[in-house]
Amino acid sequence: VGFSGADIKNLVNEAALLAGRKNKKHVEMEDFEEARDKIQLGSVREEKIEENDKKIIAYHESGHTLVARLLPGTDTLQKVTIIPRGRALGATEQVPDTERHNLSRSYLLNRITVLLGGRAAEKLVFGDLTSGASNDLKTATHLAREMVCQWGMSEKLGPVSFPVGENHPFLGREMAQERNFSEYTAKRIDEEIQNIIEAAENRASDLLEQERKRLDTLAEALLERELLEAGEIESLLDFKQEDDE
Amino acid sequence: VGFSGADIKNLVNEAALLAGRKNKKHVEMEDFEEARDKIQLGSVREEKIEENDKKIIAYHESGHTLVARLLPGTDTLQKVTIIPRGRALGATEQVPDTERHNLSRSYLLNRITVLLGGRAAEKLVFGDLTSGASNDLKTATHLAREMVCQWGMSEKLGPVSFPVGENHPFLGREMAQERNFSEYTAKRIDEEIQNIIEAAENRASDLLEQERKRLDTLAEALLERELLEAGEIESLLDFKQEDDE
Amino acid sequence: VGFSGADIKNLVNEAALLAGRKNKKHVEMEDFEEARDKIQLGSVREEKIEENDKKIIAYHESGHTLVARLLPGTDTLQKVTIIPRGRALGATEQVPDTERHNLSRSYLLNRITVLLGGRAAEKLVFGDLTSGASNDLKTATHLAREMVCQWGMSEKLGPVSFPVGENHPFLGREMAQERNFSEYTAKRIDEEIQNIIEAAENRASDLLEQERKRLDTLAEALLERELLEAGEIESLLDFKQEDDE
Amino acid sequence: VGFSGADIKNLVNEAALLAGRKNKKHVEMEDFEEARDKIQLGSVREEKIEENDKKIIAYHESGHTLVARLLPGTDTLQKVTIIPRGRALGATEQVPDTERHNLSRSYLLNRITVLLGGRAAEKLVFGDLTSGASNDLKTATHLAREMVCQWGMSEKLGPVSFPVGENHPFLGREMAQERNFSEYTAKRIDEEIQNIIEAAENRASDLLEQERKRLDTLAEALLERELLEAGEIESLLDFKQEDDE
Amino acid sequence: VGFSGADIKNLVNEAALLAGRKNKKHVEMEDFEEARDKIQLGSVREEKIEENDKKIIAYHESGHTLVARLLPGTDTLQKVTIIPRGRALGATEQVPDTERHNLSRSYLLNRITVLLGGRAAEKLVFGDLTSGASNDLKTATHLAREMVCQWGMSEKLGPVSFPVGENHPFLGREMAQERNFSEYTAKRIDEEIQNIIEAAENRASDLLEQERKRLDTLAEALLERELLEAGEIESLLDFKQEDDE
Amino acid sequence: VGFSGADIKNLVNEAALLAGRKNKKHVEMEDFEEARDKIQLGSVREEKIEENDKKIIAYHESGHTLVARLLPGTDTLQKVTIIPRGRALGATEQVPDTERHNLSRSYLLNRITVLLGGRAAEKLVFGDLTSGASNDLKTATHLAREMVCQWGMSEKLGPVSFPVGENHPFLGREMAQERNFSEYTAKRIDEEIQNIIEAAENRASDLLEQERKRLDTLAEALLERELLEAGEIESLLDFKQEDDE
Repeated sequence: VGFSGADIKNLVNEAALLAGRKNKKHVEMEDFEEARDKIQLGSVREEKIEENDKKIIAYHESGHTLVARLLPGTDTLQKVTIIPRGRALGATEQVPDTERHNLSRSYLLNRITVLLGGRAAEKLVFGDLTSGASNDLKTATHLAREMVCQWGMSEKLGPVSFPVGENHPFLGREMAQERNFSEYTAKRIDEEIQNIIEAAENRASDLLEQERKRLDTLAEALLERELLEAGEIESLLDFKQEDDE
Repeated sequence: VGFSGADIKNLVNEAALLAGRKNKKHVEMEDFEEARDKIQLGSVREEKIEENDKKIIAYHESGHTLVARLLPGTDTLQKVTIIPRGRALGATEQVPDTERHNLSRSYLLNRITVLLGGRAAEKLVFGDLTSGASNDLKTATHLAREMVCQWGMSEKLGPVSFPVGENHPFLGREMAQERNFSEYTAKRIDEEIQNIIEAAENRASDLLEQERKRLDTLAEALLERELLEAGEIESLLDFKQEDDE
Repeated sequence: VGFSGADIKNLVNEAALLAGRKNKKHVEMEDFEEARDKIQLGSVREEKIEENDKKIIAYHESGHTLVARLLPGTDTLQKVTIIPRGRALGATEQVPDTERHNLSRSYLLNRITVLLGGRAAEKLVFGDLTSGASNDLKTATHLAREMVCQWGMSEKLGPVSFPVGENHPFLGREMAQERNFSEYTAKRIDEEIQNIIEAAENRASDLLEQERKRLDTLAEALLERELLEAGEIESLLDFKQEDDE
Repeated sequence: VGFSGADIKNLVNEAALLAGRKNKKHVEMEDFEEARDKIQLGSVREEKIEENDKKIIAYHESGHTLVARLLPGTDTLQKVTIIPRGRALGATEQVPDTERHNLSRSYLLNRITVLLGGRAAEKLVFGDLTSGASNDLKTATHLAREMVCQWGMSEKLGPVSFPVGENHPFLGREMAQERNFSEYTAKRIDEEIQNIIEAAENRASDLLEQERKRLDTLAEALLERELLEAGEIESLLDFKQEDDE
Repeated sequence: VGFSGADIKNLVNEAALLAGRKNKKHVEMEDFEEARDKIQLGSVREEKIEENDKKIIAYHESGHTLVARLLPGTDTLQKVTIIPRGRALGATEQVPDTERHNLSRSYLLNRITVLLGGRAAEKLVFGDLTSGASNDLKTATHLAREMVCQWGMSEKLGPVSFPVGENHPFLGREMAQERNFSEYTAKRIDEEIQNIIEAAENRASDLLEQERKRLDTLAEALLERELLEAGEIESLLDFKQEDDE
Repeated sequence: VGFSGADIKNLVNEAALLAGRKNKKHVEMEDFEEARDKIQLGSVREEKIEENDKKIIAYHESGHTLVARLLPGTDTLQKVTIIPRGRALGATEQVPDTERHNLSRSYLLNRITVLLGGRAAEKLVFGDLTSGASNDLKTATHLAREMVCQWGMSEKLGPVSFPVGENHPFLGREMAQERNFSEYTAKRIDEEIQNIIEAAENRASDLLEQERKRLDTLAEALLERELLEAGEIESLLDFKQEDDE
């Protein structure tokens, strides 16, 4: 898999055109990326999002935000928004207090749980699922795979290391490395990944079910104001009496 | 797989010729696409369609149309036609009311059911199947695969993400991404896809069997007029008493 | 798989030579095809076919012809011949009455049965099989595969679509598309293909056994005259009393 | 698999050198083949063959020859020799009476039995096997594979066609075609191939055991004279009383 | 897998730029490596490491160091440090007394145990695991694989040799060689690798549990001084009474 | 797998440099090979081998030598040495009396036993194994694979031929040919290879255990003199009374 000769030619032409329009002397990486996006996605059109979709997105982002706020040791919440940007229809931003050098097993499990919080909220509130969680699932699965395959964090497979795909710097696509283990091991890896992901989803669902009221508060505020800063989130959720850290 | 060196040479030559005939200065994407079609399909010949084939096509399109009309939340019907266009012998056009940003599980299941409505009509009326449903099956399978593999919409596999093939922008062919999961998981994915597809087919069949009269009305009108606009469809099907939305 | 750099060079040279001998200014597709054949097959030599081989071929073609005549809804018989042409040692020609746009399941099953009629005749008459049926088997298998994988015509696998190989326009070879389904599904597909093929073979065998006399008549006439037109076939087989369509 | 860029460069250089030494204006296919052989095998050295090896070769060739003479319908024996030629240490030559257009199942089974006759003789006489039968096994396996996969000659797999590797015109290597069938089918194909091959070996062994005396006569004459023409073989084996065809 | 045409172009450009900045006349290997790192990793930023992370790293390195000191026949300890260098957050350096030409099974088992000592310490002290052990696991698995596949050091698989991936000199990535053994053998190889790795981990854990006090001493000293030379380690651990070699 | 574009470029440059230093006009094959070795291995450093390693090597080579001397029909012993040459730390040289054209099953089993004699000696004397036997295992496995797959020398798989990897003339690496048989057959091949190899190892071990004294004598002499010619070996082992051939 990869670009054929003709694709590359097209990609290079498109990138050259884009660079030319910006009066650049050289074609730069960003031109290649823009060219690729244009070929693959077509031009992005700004469009109005329907009220119904907006509500789903608001609950999705509130799910991420609330789970992130409830779990100890996750990165600090920055803001949450349902203003679309690029292809994303909403975003929950967390920033680590310090550069994280070593990711611990417990931190990673929390992070996966936060990633599944959006989907868990949709399921809880609307009893339906949407394609919007696609990137959350991809990232969560990738993290779970690394926990099992690279970081020895699965009880069953132990400290054996298995090659996983790498992100291809140009095409934005994960490339599978040639597998040097057996089908039997592949099955065990899949089972461990599914276990990690499903445990995290259950944890996210439980947290949101217990805190349904706060989830509604957050989603309603988000629908109204479209962007909430860390301070606003904190005062809306009103945890003061319960936790003082 | 892909084009060999000789193929590419031929493709480029053909595209250059086509661009030349249109007095273009540069070979454009559409020239490449036309060249590819010409090489792969030969020139398209306009031909008369036999009465018997026409009847099958009319019922096929009426199947899509009626299922689309019966299911709530699907995109709005625009028109249905049995006038051949390009390689398609007929078409049912639906247009979403608004840009769809998030595709919900229920919407997707309906869409797959509409896609299988053509085949279900053929089976119901003629007790036979034709090769004409090939593209419907391909699209329905692709959607079901994405539901299971990308969007976490299968109960059994849960919110784990599995890479699926991407459409190759040039060759119109879906390219399988290198698989990073086990044979055991592949089997479970196949089973879930088959479950989704077969449930949708049964649903389409049931709907058409219950509404056989309306199916006949639509197909007969279509055979006569060859193209029906949304309004005509509506008045033919005559749902007024039953639903008012 | 495919042509190596050296092969392509050779192919291009050979094609250029062939085009040159015909005083063409450009190398055309047909030159490439001729070059490929010359490289892969060597020059074709006209040779006398032995009496024994001729008899087998006559029964083989008569098998195709008689099954085609006996099955309803197949394409109209044009002629049958045992005069060798290119690599083929005989041929049964059928022409559709009209352009076929939609191939129905019943039509396809008949077509596969006709394809296996040659082999069935050899088996019935000589109790042996020959390599001459190779292309019939290839075509029949390909059709059965498309019925199962593209056209949803297998009960067991239903309306799920599976990618199948495409004919490579240059090399005359079928290229397998990267498989995106499980080994378990592959096994079920193989079983369905074998079921379709074997049912068709049994059907062809039964028909020929019941009509053994007419098979002998046809084969003998073919051995004598080497080519039979539609009218001659019809009067030889003498179905007048039995069917009037 | 295939030649790398560097290999091709080397191959082309070597072929150009060889063509140059022969004062040719163009590099021809035979130059490429000679170059490939030189790179892969080094220069061939003429060497004396030990008495013990010679005896094994004599029995090996006599095995082929005797089985070929005993089986009806095989190609006519031309000569048998133990004079080394190229890489072969001996040869049994058979020529078909007429060009064979259709290969029958019974003819193919006989041919495979002849191919295994050399090995069967070694086993019978020396109770050991040698690497010298390598090409016989390769050819016999290839024929058995085609019987099963291309020509529908296996009872179990029936008239289904499976792609098999093709001989690559340049590299003298069989290239496996991408497999479009299941592991389960692959296993059944393997079993059928092994059945055909082992039945043929048993048949060859039985024939040679029954005709051990004639085998010794032939091998001894071959050791003495090194080359036997058809007439000499016939008078040595002395079948006059038994068969008159 | 590998670099696409576009990647290579980018790599070459980047390397040329880097070589130019150093006023070199030719692009050298180190320029390619630097270019690759820059593309894949971005520029490295110097950053402060948190107290909590530092403590984990200190115990991790102390785990390696203590296990290395406790096991006989391992390479001589040089120093241990938690000063970050490049991407590594700490390091335990061992130097062989002499060039090792033959690696014995017992030496290799010890080396794998030392590699797992870092992770074992983290688990023992913090009850958690971190991603920081990733390279240890990779190296340990690679060694175990070579023991089983290249060096015949597994009881179960014996002295059979199986191809393993090689390090690709340019891309720093291990390339899997095409596998020429069965899935069944692959499973047995995986099991043996896991057995070796898990036995080593248990051994490391046992050693550290027994010597927990010395582990604490070492980690505390390391947190304070950040780098310990061989002599300092020796006096801190104070084995004088127990062993005199 | 293979060299990437960048690798080839580097290889070509390095080879050109090497050829230039030798004042050659053309880059020759040997330059490519030297370049490849330099890139893959770095420059070789001459280093002193430790006494302990030397003793292991002496026993390893004595194992090969003694087994070779004890087994009938193996090639004639030339010399044995523990003077390192290139990457090899020792060598046992055998030369066939005459060019071997046909390799018999019994000869091959003996050769594999000789190859495993080095490892068997290490195991017997030191109760440990070293990585030094790696090439012996590779060669022995390759021979066993050819016996099973090419030469029909396995009882279980019989005279069926299976493609095996070929040595790639440039990269010194064995390239797996695309497999055209089933996983089930692959498992049976693996089992047969393991049976051959393990039987040979047991045989080597038994021989050396019975002749332990002679093994010690040989190893001690080798440690002292570092190289033993055929005559010296013969007088050291002192078989005069026992065998007279």
